[in-house]
Amino acid sequence: MGLPRIARTTLRSSLGVDSSARVATPTHTSCAGLLPKTHLAGEHQYFPSLIRRISTLTSRKHVYQIKPRDAFQHRAISMTAQCHYPAAAAAERAPLVDSDVEVDDRRLPGLEPTIPGEKPRVAILGTGWAACRFLKGLDTKIYDVVCISPRNHMVFTPLLASTCVGTLEFRSVAEPVSRIQSALAGAPNSYFYLASCTGVDTDKHEVYCEAVSSAGLPSNPYRFKVAYDKLVIAAGADPLTFNIRGVKEHALFLREVNHAQEIRKKLLLNLMLSENPGISEEERKRLLHCVVIGGGPTGVEFSGELSDFIMRDVRQRYSHVKDYIQVTLIEANEILSSFDVGLRQYATKHLTRSGVHLVQGVVKEVLPDKILLSDGTNVPYGLLVWSTGVGPSQFVKSLAIPKSPGGRIGIDEWLRVPSADDVFALGDCAGFLEQTGKQVLPALAQVAERQGKYLAELFRKIGKANGGKAGCAKDIPLGDPFIYKHLGSMASVGRYKALVDLRQNKVRIKRFTSKLCALISQDAKGLSMAGFISWVIWRSAYLTRVVSWRNRFYVAVNWATTFVFGRDNSRIG
Amino acid sequence: MGLPRIARTTLRSSLGVDSSARVATPTHTSCAGLLPKTHLAGEHQYFPSLIRRISTLTSRKHVYQIKPRDAFQHRAISMTAQCHYPAAAAAERAPLVDSDVEVDDRRLPGLEPTIPGEKPRVAILGTGWAACRFLKGLDTKIYDVVCISPRNHMVFTPLLASTCVGTLEFRSVAEPVSRIQSALAGAPNSYFYLASCTGVDTDKHEVYCEAVSSAGLPSNPYRFKVAYDKLVIAAGADPLTFNIRGVKEHALFLREVNHAQEIRKKLLLNLMLSENPGISEEERKRLLHCVVIGGGPTGVEFSGELSDFIMRDVRQRYSHVKDYIQVTLIEANEILSSFDVGLRQYATKHLTRSGVHLVQGVVKEVLPDKILLSDGTNVPYGLLVWSTGVGPSQFVKSLAIPKSPGGRIGIDEWLRVPSADDVFALGDCAGFLEQTGKQVLPALAQVAERQGKYLAELFRKIGKANGGKAGCAKDIPLGDPFIYKHLGSMASVGRYKALVDLRQNKVRIKRFTSKLCALISQDAKGLSMAGFISWVIWRSAYLTRVVSWRNRFYVAVNWATTFVFGRDNSRIG
Repeated sequence: MGLPRIARTTLRSSLGVDSSARVATPTHTSCAGLLPKTHLAGEHQYFPSLIRRISTLTSRKHVYQIKPRDAFQHRAISMTAQCHYPAAAAAERAPLVDSDVEVDDRRLPGLEPTIPGEKPRVAILGTGWAACRFLKGLDTKIYDVVCISPRNHMVFTPLLASTCVGTLEFRSVAEPVSRIQSALAGAPNSYFYLASCTGVDTDKHEVYCEAVSSAGLPSNPYRFKVAYDKLVIAAGADPLTFNIRGVKEHALFLREVNHAQEIRKKLLLNLMLSENPGISEEERKRLLHCVVIGGGPTGVEFSGELSDFIMRDVRQRYSHVKDYIQVTLIEANEILSSFDVGLRQYATKHLTRSGVHLVQGVVKEVLPDKILLSDGTNVPYGLLVWSTGVGPSQFVKSLAIPKSPGGRIGIDEWLRVPSADDVFALGDCAGFLEQTGKQVLPALAQVAERQGKYLAELFRKIGKANGGKAGCAKDIPLGDPFIYKHLGSMASVGRYKALVDLRQNKVRIKRFTSKLCALISQDAKGLSMAGFISWVIWRSAYLTRVVSWRNRFYVAVNWATTFVFGRDNSRIG
Repeated sequence: MGLPRIARTTLRSSLGVDSSARVATPTHTSCAGLLPKTHLAGEHQYFPSLIRRISTLTSRKHVYQIKPRDAFQHRAISMTAQCHYPAAAAAERAPLVDSDVEVDDRRLPGLEPTIPGEKPRVAILGTGWAACRFLKGLDTKIYDVVCISPRNHMVFTPLLASTCVGTLEFRSVAEPVSRIQSALAGAPNSYFYLASCTGVDTDKHEVYCEAVSSAGLPSNPYRFKVAYDKLVIAAGADPLTFNIRGVKEHALFLREVNHAQEIRKKLLLNLMLSENPGISEEERKRLLHCVVIGGGPTGVEFSGELSDFIMRDVRQRYSHVKDYIQVTLIEANEILSSFDVGLRQYATKHLTRSGVHLVQGVVKEVLPDKILLSDGTNVPYGLLVWSTGVGPSQFVKSLAIPKSPGGRIGIDEWLRVPSADDVFALGDCAGFLEQTGKQVLPALAQVAERQGKYLAELFRKIGKANGGKAGCAKDIPLGDPFIYKHLGSMASVGRYKALVDLRQNKVRIKRFTSKLCALISQDAKGLSMAGFISWVIWRSAYLTRVVSWRNRFYVAVNWATTFVFGRDNSRIG
């Protein structure tokens, strides 16, 4: 495969030219000849009906207008999980009062297209692993950057489970985005907007946003637009609920710091409520029954943390109810299915020994105080944590854009969205198009981070070749496509034990003595191990991966104080 | 004044004897002869109409029944600030559906009176300075303890202002109550209940409680009772709003950790919203106008912290809007009125130099986006923090119990509530009765803490003399009454400067060189100083006063990291 180029026959300016003039221009089909071969087959189907619709609309009215509700359906590329976007969630529930009022997006306040002489502007949606790694690597000497997200920090997700029981403080796993990319804090034309993206017009090179909380602003909701030269969508995914009734209402997720806060509050509340006089044995057991659905790394790590918390802290500090607390992990198939079989067995044995009740079952419905399994069993619970992986968000689903298998935003091997100029997508919201012949990558922090790093490098290349401005990236050699190499997986299982699976990595690691490691197996592909040494590797690896020195220091201090003083159990708020 | 004794002619048992039998017993008047002389004059007026009302009711019905709403008015001694008690607040807004259903308190589940052979039970309402110092000092070899409070931690209030801007973490100023008194965590008959007290029957020696969140419990609200041998009311006070319209709706207070969290969220939100494109200069100024009402130590310290935050962190990390942010401190009289005049002048000068705008004015009304002063001025604001001191809570106000000047629960010099057997009150909710000839002490942590310590010692004395059980404390010499000696006042004013006022203390401190201290004045009574050394004293004093080693360590670590890395600005939740 030769050097592919970003090539468009029409080098459009985004300087506010009347968009009706552009309608007839065959922008997307005409550049097909220069696209990498893998794209040719599906070129026409890449062309998003979305954009075509917009263009037609524009030619008819000469003013591009949307109805707020329609925008959501037809034009929105939104990166906001609904749970973080109360306004959107409310809008879903009840129709907007002014749904028939047409909003003229051209009149929205906002950042106008960059003019010659100004640096090209990169708009990035999201502040997850992909977005933040991209932001960190982005060369702000070349680009101005505008980051749009409903949260102003990145969450160090692998350690989130530890914050639920007080092993780590919440702030230790949250990294403010302005520390990751200081240009957002201080550069004259770079900004961070605490807002949700409600729509993208890839034709006009504009994104439409809504401030997260608009109370006290000139209008409510407060909407604005940002014109971009390049758009990076790193909007993440939503937790999978499989449309099971009651999950959204009664289960807690574990993807954000405030989710962890909720879990912690509920756990401590239940511990205290169960001490109330007059609570029956049965009630007490139910209140203190913590059920985790999903046996992936998050579910297993959370169960491990919970059992540690029970072993040490509940026994000491809630001794009146210590015999009633129980952790159950429900998984439809096998726990840690992506791990080596030996590690899976080790984890199963270890969790069972730690008091975690492993149940194979499929959830049928969730009621306020019990779970119905498909085999007819009732599981009463006090705390229910749902971690069955993620899938495309409603927003991504509603996009009329070619999708990857699994329904993510379809990208090519250079992380471009081939159906739109200057648009890139990465992380959990993006997947390789079938035409690339590549498999959709798993929704892992590791993948997202590697993509962010790759894209920042690609942007440097494009920028240095003067391709930064909108539509200017044609004829620029992009170099090697993105190739993902899995470095290995890790999961802690509690009580100073963890699993390290380096089979895919083919890294040769000196064999540790079996006295120290509970289990080491080395197959043709690499190394997998479990036990205390793995736990040390797990901790060290995360400690070095935590983004800032400040948080690295805090995580270490948190671990040390938890070791010495036990976990903090103050219930705030 | 000789050794006073707790003396009641009728040594009542609280073992569930039909209360109708007790009505005629002149329990309170008959023991007047043995009360300290200061109490004799007002003895009859001590007798609470409350208890009389209950007794009449009981004799008529033979079953003691209350209507939930009535209980609130006539019988409640509640220690819950409404803001921490959503159920109560809701009840205030809308009448309870079942307000006509009579509840039989005898049927409530709960802790029955202690039986001979069991340790006497102390019930304590609250987890503030007074309650926690008492808990810490209480001899749990003598007593079982039941603590009832809607929060499970103590707040280290003097450092709360620092948490609003991220100088300290929230958890560093919260001390779980089970660490303060480990019996609550593990002793067989000691408990902590996360609940609000809704009523006290001093005659039956019972308190009535409602679990803070009752979702999922057998009834909602979930009510229970606790029979006590001794009752300690340390319920605290409510912020004073002077019935000014709009304060409760629009202002934020600064008394709890979640208040600090709200202030922080609002501050960071406004900083980010003001960066939104299309916000006018005027709007931006309003959003970033932080107004503090009240020039007491809390208001001054918060203003100082805010100005530090602006000087260092906003300039670095919100440089787009750094010129718009402004702090205004509004005080009706003079700031820090309890401090030495030299210190007041120093504080005024220092705050002004730090950019804090000091305004003398009286607030007339608070609107969602502006404050109306009585001189007709409008003050637009984005963040409004209200700290004009505290006054008796609605609950204390509604009690038909003899009050101290200022409307607190009236106590004698041994912190007893003379109108009820075995009831003690301390901290911000209690004040010396006029008959004691003593002034009501200021609502300071220092006072509360000293009272807690004193009362724990008194309880040890009573317990060792076998007076722990209900009604058994007669003829026990109580020893010296509580005498308060003010050790001095401290307040930080930001930028490594603080005030230390030891005038009342008469402590002789070696005079520091004037090079180091900005100001030292020594009058006949003692020493007062301001500047860097004071700031060092302020920090050291608080560091040693923080309750646990864990938090002492964390506060030190927080201060160090803030010094090195700046304040954390992640907005969680």
